[in-house]
Amino acid sequence: MSRWEPNARGRLEQAALELYSERGFEQTAVAEIARRAGLTERTFFRHFADKREVLFGGSGTFQDLFVAGVEGAPDGAAPIDAIAGGLESVAVFFEGRREHSRQRQAVIVANAELRERELIKLASLASAMTRTLRGRGVADPAASLAAEAGIAVFKVAFERWIADGEEHAMAPLVREALAELKAVTAGG
Amino acid sequence: MSRWEPNARGRLEQAALELYSERGFEQTAVAEIARRAGLTERTFFRHFADKREVLFGGSGTFQDLFVAGVEGAPDGAAPIDAIAGGLESVAVFFEGRREHSRQRQAVIVANAELRERELIKLASLASAMTRTLRGRGVADPAASLAAEAGIAVFKVAFERWIADGEEHAMAPLVREALAELKAVTAGG
Repeated sequence: MSRWEPNARGRLEQAALELYSERGFEQTAVAEIARRAGLTERTFFRHFADKREVLFGGSGTFQDLFVAGVEGAPDGAAPIDAIAGGLESVAVFFEGRREHSRQRQAVIVANAELRERELIKLASLASAMTRTLRGRGVADPAASLAAEAGIAVFKVAFERWIADGEEHAMAPLVREALAELKAVTAGG
Repeated sequence: MSRWEPNARGRLEQAALELYSERGFEQTAVAEIARRAGLTERTFFRHFADKREVLFGGSGTFQDLFVAGVEGAPDGAAPIDAIAGGLESVAVFFEGRREHSRQRQAVIVANAELRERELIKLASLASAMTRTLRGRGVADPAASLAAEAGIAVFKVAFERWIADGEEHAMAPLVREALAELKAVTAGG
């Protein structure tokens, strides 16, 4: 088998997600993922450290995009508007990935270890966004409050976006959730 | 040794926190905690399932108080005002516990497993508060957004309250952090 496999990473991700959905994450072995993808275990380990990383390999990209969106907001934008920029940026990242995101979320919700890993991912994202806002000159605690608010908005929009039958793109859902947060905190 | 030990639970907590601070959580054995407290391992296990539970044994009370404060808000109060009621309620819980809270936080920050457990505790609190708000007739996503906002406010106020040299009680810090969240989300 050649070292180079066309789209090996994508095939492994797809095979892993199918197997995790069918049998559960715990009950799936790396050997089975490789077999389903028509690849070897060795190829699997060239792309992923372990079977959990298949689900979290995109976390770095997700965080980088969120941060880049915040950094790219106009100078002097209010912190919450910079966060809105980050939300727009991640909304683009998710387009075309709804079915994949639904499957991934179902696998994660079903497993305590994966739920914990997801919490850590979001906590790390909140820290990164707080640092980015500080870098834009936002004082504490406004930086961390805006970052946490942004994550809450993202979670609400994401849940809606993957709901059965939902067809709106993520961008309008994110804007709607942000407007709802503003209404809630205004005490409306 | 008699089955009944005066304030055994409190003595074990104090001994555990001292040892975790001195040597690190990983490097402390239950036998050492019991010895430092002048009690037996058997007594330790009558009070705690394991050495991690010493740090999280109060989580249930903390959550119950937060929820009770939300439930106790006047009928028809806006969700964020109900959350403010929960925050007032937990602020009372923490009074007199600042030094203990500082030590506990330092132990948790130093250990990845404990940081994860703390994230799970807060996620569970967010779920409980969301359910409580729904029970008060608050629709989604306002319920979850208000709950997440409340946790963000709590985290900011708590960090300030345990900061070196801080002498304000938690209640005014909580009110200040809530006001800051409102200013941030208003885009001020």
